Amino acid sequence: MYNEVMYAMGVEPSVIRELFAYGVARKAEIGADKVFDFSIGNPSVPAPASVGHALEEIAQLPPAQVHAYTQAAGDPAVRTIIAENLNARFGTDYTAANLYLTCGAAASLSISLKAVLEPNEEVVVVAPFFPEYRTWIETHGATLVMVPARESDFQIDLDAMAAAITPRTKAVIINSPNNPVGVVYSRETLEGLAALLNAKQDEFGTTIFLISDEPYRELVYGGVEVPWVPSIYANTIVCYSWSKSLSLPGERVGYILVPQTLRDWEHIYFAVAGAGRALGFVCAPAIFQQVIARCIDEPADLAAYEHNRELLTSMLDELGFEYIKPQGAFYLWMRSLDPDAKAFSEQAKKHELLIVASDSFGVEGWARLGYCIAPETITNSRDAFAALKADYE
Amino acid sequence: MYNEVMYAMGVEPSVIRELFAYGVARKAEIGADKVFDFSIGNPSVPAPASVGHALEEIAQLPPAQVHAYTQAAGDPAVRTIIAENLNARFGTDYTAANLYLTCGAAASLSISLKAVLEPNEEVVVVAPFFPEYRTWIETHGATLVMVPARESDFQIDLDAMAAAITPRTKAVIINSPNNPVGVVYSRETLEGLAALLNAKQDEFGTTIFLISDEPYRELVYGGVEVPWVPSIYANTIVCYSWSKSLSLPGERVGYILVPQTLRDWEHIYFAVAGAGRALGFVCAPAIFQQVIARCIDEPADLAAYEHNRELLTSMLDELGFEYIKPQGAFYLWMRSLDPDAKAFSEQAKKHELLIVASDSFGVEGWARLGYCIAPETITNSRDAFAALKADYE
Repeated sequence: MYNEVMYAMGVEPSVIRELFAYGVARKAEIGADKVFDFSIGNPSVPAPASVGHALEEIAQLPPAQVHAYTQAAGDPAVRTIIAENLNARFGTDYTAANLYLTCGAAASLSISLKAVLEPNEEVVVVAPFFPEYRTWIETHGATLVMVPARESDFQIDLDAMAAAITPRTKAVIINSPNNPVGVVYSRETLEGLAALLNAKQDEFGTTIFLISDEPYRELVYGGVEVPWVPSIYANTIVCYSWSKSLSLPGERVGYILVPQTLRDWEHIYFAVAGAGRALGFVCAPAIFQQVIARCIDEPADLAAYEHNRELLTSMLDELGFEYIKPQGAFYLWMRSLDPDAKAFSEQAKKHELLIVASDSFGVEGWARLGYCIAPETITNSRDAFAALKADYE
Repeated sequence: MYNEVMYAMGVEPSVIRELFAYGVARKAEIGADKVFDFSIGNPSVPAPASVGHALEEIAQLPPAQVHAYTQAAGDPAVRTIIAENLNARFGTDYTAANLYLTCGAAASLSISLKAVLEPNEEVVVVAPFFPEYRTWIETHGATLVMVPARESDFQIDLDAMAAAITPRTKAVIINSPNNPVGVVYSRETLEGLAALLNAKQDEFGTTIFLISDEPYRELVYGGVEVPWVPSIYANTIVCYSWSKSLSLPGERVGYILVPQTLRDWEHIYFAVAGAGRALGFVCAPAIFQQVIARCIDEPADLAAYEHNRELLTSMLDELGFEYIKPQGAFYLWMRSLDPDAKAFSEQAKKHELLIVASDSFGVEGWARLGYCIAPETITNSRDAFAALKADYE
């Protein structure tokens, strides 16, 4: 009497959400300072003051200027401001016509996939990967194909990627800076990927879209370069959100960029607009379109995350944990001390440490630590991590 | 190389949007006061001052309290406030657990349909109907079945409805107050529909959901009753939006109500949550969840629409046009003077009158006039309507 697949998606909380809910309950039980919750990727840095000022300013405007429907693609003036910001940073020449504003990165990805996918096609993802990719790929009728990352540094394994691409491959999704690993794909990696995809397009006579999921683009440390993907591979669609860079995850505002380098880009742009309409999106929230226009040049506040990253990596170094040094986003990818990462995550819970087993992201043997948390949580977690280490010695 | 169906949906502007765009261009050409634009259903009444005050208040709060992710279903405290408002008005006993907040009515409908539909099922709509119903029904794999309304008063034709319902009927969508006709379904109509659906459920051993699309619920004139549908038919899902009642169409905030009277309601609620997730919705915009909590008791500002309705109906009466007297929403349904309503709409354009041919809504021989416009547009349009009438005499 209802759609069983939708029911299953609704009733089965993700492991991450489940662990987070456990943490909330456990904190209520024994005190928030006794639980060391590394489970969630919710920005701990507040939105910048400029967002509050923009809201105050907008609240004074005549409401008809603010809360009305915008074009489905978003207010053209706002899109022009975003295009100019990208052009200044990346040497591109985008206009409003390349941008389709969305209700955040989830919407951007779902709409982009719906726009390009036809039945029985394949979408390649690099594992470990954000678990909702599977949800959207399968909802829109395609099959997820998983390519493990190169385990030495979690860059893309180009040989494995080459083996995974078939005539049915419609798209490859990449996420850099990466959730859950925290790596940033190097220019070399991306150029290698572009060469591979171009060769496969020629070989098969197909178009392979590179969907670049970039909500963490602004969150990088130590001057690591985040190359502009559409300048490296022509058939790129960029999915962005201000959730992380401006700490606005609840407000749902982002975009899809359909660059004019993309083969047949105007048709793809129409398909994106059609997919947004078909799924029930009408426009991105009007007030946050106006906020973004006013705050577009606001830099992401990296200091707190960078400080946490230092605290966490120093502590793990001293305790002798193995991990991938984070270059961006706010996650650290730590080797599990148990071959069964779920058992390791359960063991950690005994010390009130909440870390997500890598199985949630499609691989075994690792755990994700989100460090978008209070720095005291990190410093106070030292004994717990030491005890967890001791359990395996 | 892309999804052709999505492309077609994106590239083909709806007749309504096309007429609206023509109007914008024509106003630029000959002056806004020379074009009488009845094409669009965009609230002309501004959002109430309380919305601006709420925004100012919220802008002062610590940003982490405002812009963070809420639960996918929405902030439980906000949902409780909405449930209590409904309970006070309709004598129900809903709680937060019955409500799933959405990015507006389009999202509510798309998500509800996705939650219940399985392949090869049918959804019945009453014609004339809001054209996007077809988009969402077909996107989610079902077939739209059209039942013409009773032409005397545009209430539901129960005999035609009975003939249209089959063992494959999963849902019926109703919209009261109605776009495009402006009628409100009477208690008698709804009780008749409930008896029919209950009988058909028994006959076929199926569940038939009544999806009640109610964005205009608060917009009624002359004390007409808008019966509370779930109290009349148990298997009702309510789709609501504050777009019209608080004039916030660009902000995308509404809800799905899954009442506990609904058969197996907790499963349906999970299916709704799964569908929201599957389509790429994460949560309703956080700031407007908070605005709604503060403005829930704000009455819709009916005076302007009621005044326009008077102006328009008096004028059409004097000129001798035939129309259905509007009871709610902000549309008037006028008999076309040409059997071909599209030709009639084209003829109206010659007098700078923009009215939407009924073909867009699935029926022939009528036109929709949206009167959510400046009152001067109505009074100044008199000569144009008179000339249009004369063309057919």
